[in-house]
Amino acid sequence: MTATPLRLRITYHLAGSTRAAAARARDLAFEQTVELPPDAVSPEIAARFAGRVESVRPLGRRRSRAVVSFDPAVVCGDLPQLLNLLFGNISLKAGILIAAVDWPEPLLAQLGGPRLGIPGLRALAGVPARPLVCAALKPLGLSPASLADHAAVFARAGIDIIKDDHSLVDQASAPFRERVERCQEAVVRANGDTGGNTLYFPNVTGGPRQLLERVEFARRVGCRGAVVNALPAGLGAAGAIADAGLAVMAHPSLGGAFFGPDHGIAPAVLLGDLFRVAGSDAVIYPNVGGRFTFSHATCRAINARLRGPLGPVLPAFPVPAGGIDAARVPHWVERYGPDTIFLLGSSLYRDPDPGRAARRLAEAVRRRAHG
Amino acid sequence: MTATPLRLRITYHLAGSTRAAAARARDLAFEQTVELPPDAVSPEIAARFAGRVESVRPLGRRRSRAVVSFDPAVVCGDLPQLLNLLFGNISLKAGILIAAVDWPEPLLAQLGGPRLGIPGLRALAGVPARPLVCAALKPLGLSPASLADHAAVFARAGIDIIKDDHSLVDQASAPFRERVERCQEAVVRANGDTGGNTLYFPNVTGGPRQLLERVEFARRVGCRGAVVNALPAGLGAAGAIADAGLAVMAHPSLGGAFFGPDHGIAPAVLLGDLFRVAGSDAVIYPNVGGRFTFSHATCRAINARLRGPLGPVLPAFPVPAGGIDAARVPHWVERYGPDTIFLLGSSLYRDPDPGRAARRLAEAVRRRAHG
Repeated sequence: MTATPLRLRITYHLAGSTRAAAARARDLAFEQTVELPPDAVSPEIAARFAGRVESVRPLGRRRSRAVVSFDPAVVCGDLPQLLNLLFGNISLKAGILIAAVDWPEPLLAQLGGPRLGIPGLRALAGVPARPLVCAALKPLGLSPASLADHAAVFARAGIDIIKDDHSLVDQASAPFRERVERCQEAVVRANGDTGGNTLYFPNVTGGPRQLLERVEFARRVGCRGAVVNALPAGLGAAGAIADAGLAVMAHPSLGGAFFGPDHGIAPAVLLGDLFRVAGSDAVIYPNVGGRFTFSHATCRAINARLRGPLGPVLPAFPVPAGGIDAARVPHWVERYGPDTIFLLGSSLYRDPDPGRAARRLAEAVRRRAHG
Repeated sequence: MTATPLRLRITYHLAGSTRAAAARARDLAFEQTVELPPDAVSPEIAARFAGRVESVRPLGRRRSRAVVSFDPAVVCGDLPQLLNLLFGNISLKAGILIAAVDWPEPLLAQLGGPRLGIPGLRALAGVPARPLVCAALKPLGLSPASLADHAAVFARAGIDIIKDDHSLVDQASAPFRERVERCQEAVVRANGDTGGNTLYFPNVTGGPRQLLERVEFARRVGCRGAVVNALPAGLGAAGAIADAGLAVMAHPSLGGAFFGPDHGIAPAVLLGDLFRVAGSDAVIYPNVGGRFTFSHATCRAINARLRGPLGPVLPAFPVPAGGIDAARVPHWVERYGPDTIFLLGSSLYRDPDPGRAARRLAEAVRRRAHG
């Protein structure tokens, strides 16, 4: 984003012939707003509320690049409506990919974005400059006591943030309240012993009422942040956690549904722009070379969209994850730089001594950052 | 669903070689639950909490059909977690399609499904047997007074349900409270004059707190149901509206992201099974032959999954929409039968006299149903 547009400008890649592209772009501009064909809308309403096709250009191989702009008043600061405006009805058509978004500053100010961002989360963690290390509490099926034991081990090892696995909800094996209370207690006790400052972020994903109750409970027992599956819970869930004063670590669960090569929302737009403006202070994504399918270029693009200038919106931490090998973390530190949270799961749990593995990892990151 | 399974059984279609399919199915079963490889999980946890591969069979053309079953306790009655379990992390892999779900009865009882269903919504509307007719209030950009005028016209014409367009949120052109109060008033007044029983369903989509506030406001001013964009707001939003005692009409906005031919969730599973168990009394979908891309077979499959037997879960109304021509409604009545709500938008607004067009439509459906 260089200039500051007055309208919300969306770059769509449209499949099909160049000849058809202009009509498809115009159709999209009406479909996503007034949801009526142009001949059924008054010229005044069409001019103010329908999208406006700014440009349509060939992109090669039967694809076109169309820029459509919208009055930000249509979003009215509402996160589900933002998703709906961008891709709601047209998701049900074919061959439409959202490649980029240019954000008008008043809309950014209205949406708010991260309340803490990189600087605020650094302050919470007491880590002014180096990369952060995060470990996942797992697996689903363990009791609260066993999860709390893991949390204590990781906290004593010097891990910066310990997060619930994103599938820990309110299962009978580890009910939400008991789990969160015990894990938070374990981390506080470990911090007391070590003089450390490890944070515990429980997973608060749930329906609207459950989510608000879980956030409030987590806050009450002293947690300073939370994990949320921002798509299953609705993008507004991130904002609700931020409003409650907790740091937001957003998980990309379900996100892959949007990452079709010619239909959907580009990963850097969904996990970068949208998760960030929704209020995420840190966004987890599947790193290249792990168990998932992102390329180097995709990971770089997500990092850039999370950290780059975006009007009044604070930068958010990228959290590469999804099968990072602890031994390779120094390599990723070189590659991604200090404004990164490295999230490790399997690699620690596969070690016969996860505490030792976590300590080695934490020390390697501290050494690397000072070296 | 014929037998009643004890476990939640998901049928996945996996792209790739048959030889790889068994390993992919096993990988998926662990990825979606304990999120650790088998060698890093205790045998007790793996046996109880990881998915279990029930069968893997070739499906032709480098595709396999894998049935993986899960302990329903993993869902713990939580709708976002249900989505997460089915497709959360594996959405970020490639070539995985959810083709069918077999539901264990205790899980269905726990999730609840529609509170009103077809019989309850019929009772609300005072329509015991014939199809229902629904009109959309639009376009975005109109004032509350103008939207209320439309509502009055449609109510006087004998439309059964008048719903907000799914993009009407809380825009300055028609703020939520003023819009809902005025439209509800207009419909009540029209009912008083005509002796009719038209219902007005406002769109209550929003973040968790906004959604709960909007639902409560709608209830307070006398609305008996609401529209929700169930994916942008999170699947739990439908349940929250149902819990508040309002009928739920779910809109498929964003749904198309899931409808990749070899990666995603089949429309009949997402809009049929999942929207229904989430608590929707009526589910809008883009009818074949309109502006969108569903086939006849897809529409029939959605209808069947919404209406068919599903343990203790009530049937829900299919709401075909997305460019139905009013003149063709009698044809669709023949085709889809009486347990259907026909939703019309453009076709009414393009008429020089939308009230007359709506009356003709309402009369045609009443005639057809009694003929």
